[in-house]
Amino acid sequence: MSEVYASRRTRLRDRCNASGTTAALITSPANVRYLAGAAPHGAVLLLGTQEDLLVCPGPPDDRPTEGRPDDSLLVHALPRAGGDPAVAAADLLKAQGGDSLAIEEHHLTVARHRQLHSVAPRLRVADLGTTVEQLRVVKDEEEISCLRIGAEITDQALGELLESILVGRTERHLALELERRLVDHGADGPAFATSVATGPNAGRRGHRPTDRRVEEGDFLSVCLGANYHGYRCEIGRTFVIGTSPADWQIELYDLVFAAQRAAREALAPGAAYRDVDRAARQVLDSAGYAEHLPALSGHGVGLEIDEDPQLAPAAMGKLDACVPVTVEPGVHLPGRGGVRIDDTLVVRPEADGGPELLTITTKELLAL
Amino acid sequence: MSEVYASRRTRLRDRCNASGTTAALITSPANVRYLAGAAPHGAVLLLGTQEDLLVCPGPPDDRPTEGRPDDSLLVHALPRAGGDPAVAAADLLKAQGGDSLAIEEHHLTVARHRQLHSVAPRLRVADLGTTVEQLRVVKDEEEISCLRIGAEITDQALGELLESILVGRTERHLALELERRLVDHGADGPAFATSVATGPNAGRRGHRPTDRRVEEGDFLSVCLGANYHGYRCEIGRTFVIGTSPADWQIELYDLVFAAQRAAREALAPGAAYRDVDRAARQVLDSAGYAEHLPALSGHGVGLEIDEDPQLAPAAMGKLDACVPVTVEPGVHLPGRGGVRIDDTLVVRPEADGGPELLTITTKELLAL
Repeated sequence: MSEVYASRRTRLRDRCNASGTTAALITSPANVRYLAGAAPHGAVLLLGTQEDLLVCPGPPDDRPTEGRPDDSLLVHALPRAGGDPAVAAADLLKAQGGDSLAIEEHHLTVARHRQLHSVAPRLRVADLGTTVEQLRVVKDEEEISCLRIGAEITDQALGELLESILVGRTERHLALELERRLVDHGADGPAFATSVATGPNAGRRGHRPTDRRVEEGDFLSVCLGANYHGYRCEIGRTFVIGTSPADWQIELYDLVFAAQRAAREALAPGAAYRDVDRAARQVLDSAGYAEHLPALSGHGVGLEIDEDPQLAPAAMGKLDACVPVTVEPGVHLPGRGGVRIDDTLVVRPEADGGPELLTITTKELLAL
Repeated sequence: MSEVYASRRTRLRDRCNASGTTAALITSPANVRYLAGAAPHGAVLLLGTQEDLLVCPGPPDDRPTEGRPDDSLLVHALPRAGGDPAVAAADLLKAQGGDSLAIEEHHLTVARHRQLHSVAPRLRVADLGTTVEQLRVVKDEEEISCLRIGAEITDQALGELLESILVGRTERHLALELERRLVDHGADGPAFATSVATGPNAGRRGHRPTDRRVEEGDFLSVCLGANYHGYRCEIGRTFVIGTSPADWQIELYDLVFAAQRAAREALAPGAAYRDVDRAARQVLDSAGYAEHLPALSGHGVGLEIDEDPQLAPAAMGKLDACVPVTVEPGVHLPGRGGVRIDDTLVVRPEADGGPELLTITTKELLAL
């Protein structure tokens, strides 16, 4: 694995050199993990002029870590907690003779930037921007395999819930049970806060579970995902509670399903982000739900649950092969509830069978 | 409740005016919640020259919120998701005729700061520093009451776990079960990631639960807390698994207990932070554990689990009445395990009975 991280750092270094800086300071935890193999709490990564250093805020025993730092990396731990590893990194760069440094201006605070400047006032500082985030968009097969395992775990957790009795239980309880089951099946934890929404809450994106209990006739929508070795996937399904769904429920469900399928089918290398979004959006739009649509139809996933690309009307760019994204259109009708259907898929060329569906739980409208 | 938030904003405005700025932009979520009653995801608070505005990144339905915004506050929602509320707030301030703005440099990123400058280049920007965090240190009785209820919930969750069978279960399972029980008893969620540590892991601060199973003869240390209406408390206890603890376990436990008691007894209005820390530290130091001590003996709690003050050797400042803090010394012996004992207490004057212990689970060494 060590070569993977080293070669990611080489790619980043090439980009920095091309734009005129000889060193880079990575402070965003997901980016540190991507380049170093692990992101101990508060650690930063210095791509130095001579060597790469993972600078940690304290002795290793004190702080828990997900993943293991790449062996080819030097680890520098601050002797006492309380110091800022970013400031220490600037000091170390001075010692290496470095004179320029690219920083993550979208992550580093104004206060840390100021401190950094005060320890190394002659350092020429440039913005690295989202260079590392852009490197992260296309995944290698190792990364996709983590997402695939995470999706299997997620399907298992959801499948078990569907076999249990739901009426009378609260959204909170169901969410906690799903999270427990994720961990039971081997997840490092939930990929994000599990959402369970019933009745009038159903179909709301990012709904925070309440004490509302599941009732007969409700829509029930759930959204969950496993974090497996740092990689986060997402599934969303909507069910009906009781023996037979009402006509409006069937109609709304079929519509959202059609929208979701249209977007899934639009996933291909070279497809514009906004075209994938439009595929879903126009199905819902033409049925008169333009007012009720979320801002996006999907997004990238990986070391963070919400990464580039955004599948949204104003997004610029085109999909590549090996980019995992969610496809998650939905309609929420205030006071009545709604439907969301959400899958994680990997963009693949037609020759390889088209988009690879990672979350395989059925999308039939189940009455539970 | 509305007056509480309005009067907090008045106090902040007074501080800003005293240092020469007529407006302030609050971006840190805990600070937004403290001053506005709620912090919808991504929202910022503008204390303007004419009125106060909670600026939200999108329409209210789209985003779940903890708490309710104060009624006396105007809510301004960006029409479409994707814009930065901080930048919109700078624009709104221009419209109010504002010419100076205090910002939270320790929270705002360099990139956002740059954008803010580009929409309002004539705005004189100053650093608000941790002014709001300092206002938050002393709690009112309403806030303490939330912490007290949170601590009761936490004690209940822990108490129930102690009655169940522990041998053979994994750290992860026990942590999830504790979190479920917190929610069962009315918590909004866990205050922080629950830590359960067994055998050689026991006593490690912030240990992340693993698949290690509880064994006979283990130390078992747990650290958990409820989030109740946004307020976060913390309890930590260490137990022995089996019928009778080994001599070294009893000795280590008694020592940490003595250190924890010494620090608890040092809590009083006017006591220096470092003296509270020293009270615990010197007990452990003199028993030869100087090498194994964490960087701090406790910290403030409130809307965040780790707030000012820090009870640490280099901390400057003195305790006030109505400041809730943790007291949590511990010793971890690499390869063998260790002990941590952690309470949340509120500093009270002697006349009021001294420090108020919120987390009342017994600190006897229980053999489970």
